[in-house]
Parts: sequence; structure tokens; C-alpha cells
Amino acid sequence: MIKTAGCLIIGNEILTSKTKDINLNHLAEELFKSGIDLMQAIVVRDIKDDIIWGVKELSKKYDYVFTSGGIGPTHDDITTESIAQAFSLDVELNKDAHKLLKEFYGENITEARLKMASIPFGAKLIENKISTAPGFQVENVFVMAGVPKIFKSMLNEVLSKIEKGETIKSVSHIFSIPESDIAKPLTKIAMEFEKDGVEIGSYPKMEGNSWVVEIVVRSRNEGISSEVMNKVKEEFAKIIPTWKFNGV
Amino acid sequence: MIKTAGCLIIGNEILTSKTKDINLNHLAEELFKSGIDLMQAIVVRDIKDDIIWGVKELSKKYDYVFTSGGIGPTHDDITTESIAQAFSLDVELNKDAHKLLKEFYGENITEARLKMASIPFGAKLIENKISTAPGFQVENVFVMAGVPKIFKSMLNEVLSKIEKGETIKSVSHIFSIPESDIAKPLTKIAMEFEKDGVEIGSYPKMEGNSWVVEIVVRSRNEGISSEVMNKVKEEFAKIIPTWKFNGV
Repeated sequence: MIKTAGCLIIGNEILTSKTKDINLNHLAEELFKSGIDLMQAIVVRDIKDDIIWGVKELSKKYDYVFTSGGIGPTHDDITTESIAQAFSLDVELNKDAHKLLKEFYGENITEARLKMASIPFGAKLIENKISTAPGFQVENVFVMAGVPKIFKSMLNEVLSKIEKGETIKSVSHIFSIPESDIAKPLTKIAMEFEKDGVEIGSYPKMEGNSWVVEIVVRSRNEGISSEVMNKVKEEFAKIIPTWKFNGV
Repeated sequence: MIKTAGCLIIGNEILTSKTKDINLNHLAEELFKSGIDLMQAIVVRDIKDDIIWGVKELSKKYDYVFTSGGIGPTHDDITTESIAQAFSLDVELNKDAHKLLKEFYGENITEARLKMASIPFGAKLIENKISTAPGFQVENVFVMAGVPKIFKSMLNEVLSKIEKGETIKSVSHIFSIPESDIAKPLTKIAMEFEKDGVEIGSYPKMEGNSWVVEIVVRSRNEGISSEVMNKVKEEFAKIIPTWKFNGV
């Protein structure tokens, strides 16, 4: 069974360009290695209705949802209450989270810090090895911090526990030929192997002033990926000598 | 009138981590400078139903939608047909686009290249100064290429023509104090100035082994942003001498 996932990135800082998000790419990398298909990502502002909408959409469509951001102690951290509302749950002081924070902060435990121990009723904690305040899981949604170092650490925790899948074997090759010139044979090959779960991507890019195209063959069967790439090379070899135009 | 925008990033390569998307951050930057509020972004795979869903959601919610990716000549470029279907339009060979491509490619015009001149009926072209094949506009949706250099160029074209807004003035300052310790006074200030369209963001980060917090005040009134930041500094000055714990 192939497992699918969605990602919800929460924070005004991403959409106002104050912060370059790097969690989505990291998540994509880790899920790819785990054989889980990341199917969609949504980036929202710190707006309750938008967070609720995003998490509901992803939760109903995919097996797992990973969220990033908005679980800190300040007024703009509204992820926890939004997730709770999305699943009609109350937010309450979690005993285990409270204990963790008391041990960590000692006499410096404050109301603001206790906010980080308040999570939706019945949620399971996700360990935070960096700064203690935990993430949590509600249904198929894993709610994690936005600070990249903490996000990474929490994601490791989650991935060590959930069911993963057979990994995708990806083979890629860069051809010095315009993408348009290989479109026809590539389409034929893509259609021929679609039924075998093979997906072919074609990515043009400029190298200096010349256009090249990277072909990526992805499937869960390494033998097939290599076989398809050999076929691509064979077909392209027929065209490359006739190539005349430096363009897309 | 404040203008709002959504962004749709299309492509398996982003969600499989093959390619790090840089167009969303660039768009966020440019829209921020233009005074247009980027409210949401959706990243989808090369799946027709997902593209249609994403563009419809964003188009109905926001004033402008900017899409990136999937308008090239190969089999995995399905953005054009998906956008057309989302708005119940036929795709047809556009005379102006055809002329542009004929002039550019001369005798090297091929069926695959002509695919790039086929756009939804009635759509307006978006000039492509890098590689000729144009983007296009359907209703409030601007469909642009995913190759970053072309995306940038097309975005420039679009931004030179659409209605923009009053820009946001953002003032930021980094404080060497844990975020939790300033949560309470910050909430008070945030609530006090919310009615004036002031938004305060609080972003903790690690610098070496110490936690610091960056406070960002954003509003369309520069005087107010500075005034609020002064207030933040005043309040924080009362707390910093009592700070005892290095944590979030």
C-alpha cells in the first residue's frame, strides 16, 4: 500500500518573504527517502480559518499531514487552537507535556511557557530534543515547530514510528538538446510505461546560454527505471544528430 | 483597496525534492514590494484534478493568482489544459503566440513547439523575454513558466500592468531574550494596535547555543510601525534585566 502525505506550512513570515521556508524541501526529501508520496503542500498565514481549512483539506485527502509553525508561546502562534477547532477538540494542559516543561524550566516556568504544554485533548506528544516543548499528533496530523532545527528533529521522531513505503528509484540524465525536440518520443515512452507505475519528468534549464533538459524517470522498481532510461537514451540518440536550434 | 493574491506552484519535482522551489519566495518578495498581500500558496503535482482544484480555490478567494510551472512542450506539461478546463474554456492555437514562435524558431517550428502557442480561448498573452513562448492570463489568473529566470521575467511584465497597493512598512529588531518572556507584553501591544492594521510577528531562532527572538512590526503606515516598535523596546527593557533562562 502506498502511503500519501500533505504538508501545511503556517506563518505570515513565509508569504511576506521575511523568511525563506526550508522545511517543505526537507520534508519532501525525507518522505521521498521513506517511500511516502508527498502529494500537496499548502502555505497559509497566521489566520485561524485558513489553518482550519488547510488542515481539513489535507487530512481528508492524504494518509498523513505534516504541519510546520505556529506552536510557540506568543500571540501569533495560533496553530494549536486552530487544529483543535478543526477536529472539534478542546485544548487542555497536557500532564506529560507539563511535566517535561517543569523539569526543563524549573522555577522559570511561566504562563507563556505553559501555553506550549496546552494541546488538543487526546493528542499524542511528539518529542522535541532541541527545546523540550513538544509537537503533537491529532488523528493523521503531525503538528511540528517551524524553527528548522526543531522541525527536523520532530520529523525524525515521527518517521521512526509511522508506516513507510517502498522507496522510489529515480534515475536522471541531462541531455544537451532542446526540450521540444524530444517531446514526441518522450511522450510515447511515458505512455508505454505509465501502467507500470513509471513517471517521467522533463525539466529544461539554461546552462550558460544553452538550453539543456534533464529527464528523470521515477518508479518503485529500480530495474524498470533503468530500462526506461535506456530506452530514452536510445530514442534521443536518433534525434540529437539532427538538432539545429538552441531554444526550449 | 488592498489587493490580495494566491500562488499555485505546479510540478512533481518540487514535492519529490528533486528541485528546490525558489519562485514562491521571489513572488512573495515582489508582491510585498508592490503592496499586494500574498495570502496563500498551494503546491500540487502534475495532476489535472489537483491543478483545477488549486486554481479554482485561489481564484475565488483572492484578487490575483500567479501560477508557476507546467507550460512547456512535454507530456508532463498539463497546466494549460487544466486551467482551460477549470474555466470551461477550449484550448486553441493563439494567432499572436503562433506568430511569435514562427518568428523565433523559423524552420525549426515543430508540433511540440506549437503546443506552447496553444492557450485557452480568449486568454491574454504574457511576454516571455527569455525564450519567447508566452505565459497567459485567464480571468484573474496569471499562468507563468516554472524556470526561475522566465518566471521572474514574466512576473515583471505582469506587475508592470496590474493594480498594486500601498506598500507595507516593516520594522524589525532582534532581542537577546527568550520568546516566552516577552509573550505577555507583546500580546498586549499586538491587541492594542490590531485595529490600526498593525501586525506583529515574533520569530525565535538559535544563534549558536542561545535563543534570540526577532520582532517584526508590519503596517501600511511607517509612522505607526516605528511607534509600535519603540513601545516594544520600552516594554522589553523592563524585562530583559530579569531574564534568567536560556530557552524558548
